[in-house]
Amino acid sequence: MKIVLDAMGSENMPAADVTGAVEAARLYPNDEIILVGRQSLIEAELANHQTVGLNLTIVHADELIEMTDKPREVVRGKPNSSMHVGLNLVKEGKGDAFVSMGNTGCTLAVSMLATLRRIPGVKRPAIGAIFPLPARPILLDNGANADCQPDYLYQFGIMGSIYASCVTGKARPTVGLVSNGEEDGKGNDLVKEAGKLLSASSLNFVGNIEPKDFMSGEIDVAIADGFVGNIMLKTAEATARTLTGLIRSEIKTGMLSSIGGMLARPALRRVGAMLDPDEVGGAPLLGVNGVVIIGHGSSGSKAVRNAIGQAREAVEFGVVDAIKQGIESG
Amino acid sequence: MKIVLDAMGSENMPAADVTGAVEAARLYPNDEIILVGRQSLIEAELANHQTVGLNLTIVHADELIEMTDKPREVVRGKPNSSMHVGLNLVKEGKGDAFVSMGNTGCTLAVSMLATLRRIPGVKRPAIGAIFPLPARPILLDNGANADCQPDYLYQFGIMGSIYASCVTGKARPTVGLVSNGEEDGKGNDLVKEAGKLLSASSLNFVGNIEPKDFMSGEIDVAIADGFVGNIMLKTAEATARTLTGLIRSEIKTGMLSSIGGMLARPALRRVGAMLDPDEVGGAPLLGVNGVVIIGHGSSGSKAVRNAIGQAREAVEFGVVDAIKQGIESG
Repeated sequence: MKIVLDAMGSENMPAADVTGAVEAARLYPNDEIILVGRQSLIEAELANHQTVGLNLTIVHADELIEMTDKPREVVRGKPNSSMHVGLNLVKEGKGDAFVSMGNTGCTLAVSMLATLRRIPGVKRPAIGAIFPLPARPILLDNGANADCQPDYLYQFGIMGSIYASCVTGKARPTVGLVSNGEEDGKGNDLVKEAGKLLSASSLNFVGNIEPKDFMSGEIDVAIADGFVGNIMLKTAEATARTLTGLIRSEIKTGMLSSIGGMLARPALRRVGAMLDPDEVGGAPLLGVNGVVIIGHGSSGSKAVRNAIGQAREAVEFGVVDAIKQGIESG
Repeated sequence: MKIVLDAMGSENMPAADVTGAVEAARLYPNDEIILVGRQSLIEAELANHQTVGLNLTIVHADELIEMTDKPREVVRGKPNSSMHVGLNLVKEGKGDAFVSMGNTGCTLAVSMLATLRRIPGVKRPAIGAIFPLPARPILLDNGANADCQPDYLYQFGIMGSIYASCVTGKARPTVGLVSNGEEDGKGNDLVKEAGKLLSASSLNFVGNIEPKDFMSGEIDVAIADGFVGNIMLKTAEATARTLTGLIRSEIKTGMLSSIGGMLARPALRRVGAMLDPDEVGGAPLLGVNGVVIIGHGSSGSKAVRNAIGQAREAVEFGVVDAIKQGIESG
């Protein structure tokens, strides 16, 4: 298998990206990792690592896409970017998957408009957020489509269910529609219409769900428009940060509780590790004609390595072909 | 001041409701608390308390609204419910505010369609959720309007800003529009249009905000449609519950960390108390022609007592008149 990595993706590029690639190359010795970006920068970083015997190759790409770049502008404006070059390798069959910690909007735009394009029949590709919870539930769309039609949400159900099968191994993952109440008839107009389409599908659709059903791990796939999905993810992140911050500062206010906090630290660390988004790696871009995983710009090498692992899984499972079939027959 | 309490509201009615009223009557000896509901039930519960000298009165109402009742059906179908009778007392000037722990949809419907009606010019009343965070930020709408137009969101800004002034004492609270990114141009179509209206207003509008800005206490008022607002609130609740559950179970797995957890317990309890929704009391229904506070069905007496306190504050501040003026001049 050949995994193409955007070596210019993360905020700490190329250090985090290249280090993650080296770690992945050690983990998966039978696979090739193709580093795409400025050759001199990549080589300088590789020189910091022990790479003898590792299956790492470099493909030069001259242009860099920055976090501040606008998706519309880079699609035609930076045709030699590491994203264009890397995604074209996948399009041409010279790579099996593309992984980037770079600008999400630009990865999406370059994938859809300039390189891989959509899987036939897919109305709108979606970004799937895998929550770093023990059950690894997936929420989509996480921001690719702020305004949706009911049939987009229906297709998110098909694509999310297939990806959840890949991650969890379940043949028929449970799919729920995020709503402001579980009862039938709850929801905004979009959700009510999408619910009808999903109910009539062959998916393992459980109807309306609330955030608690998703967070508890009961539901494998949560469907929402990209605006709502993005706000759910960010609310969960902000709540976790606020709560841990309050706990930390209150524990520090007394001597006994400080000692207690020290004794409990390994347990708190385990919780932190469980919920560490870097353990997941990145977010799959579903509906484009190739495997694409997009990570946070702030990713360290662990997230890069895990995103490469995710990409491998999606290739092995045949996510793209499964979505092709799912959309055709759906 | 006369506060009207739906004594038939909570799941543990009338015990929680009446006990909360007794506690409030002790706290606010100059005010009258009017308990509305089945006289025999209320009297039986009052007999469990020391009420000599407390300013508690009973107004009989024969019908009960259940949590499973449908708003549309009760508006005309249960005209002698404790909600109808209580809200009519406020409408007729025999009470200054109405408080209920009952069915939210029914309280909303009976307020809007059968009793208080809307403040002139208000397109859609909204439910404001006050987050139990130190800064007491308010998010609206929290579920009254699943589908919104830009001008509804604009009015939510006016009403939310006034209510935040009442709660925080700030003359010009900061108002933000919940979006999937802070940059201008982020948002779904609704948010983009509402942002234009809010930007042109005299509110202290800061533009698009993300959940973290709201949770951190930087923003006093967060505006969203009722679908998104409800999901934000429920995601925050679900995340807090998931995280505290994980911490609790991990702490219990080892002896040292268990001891640590015991030592840190007072600190963890303080965090729990800070984030206790019962400390807030309930959610204001903004835009109807009277002060209405709606609490959780699962409320205990503390939430009831605090909801009565909230209602008093809103009456003292003159929230309804301020909204009348704000909507007229907005």
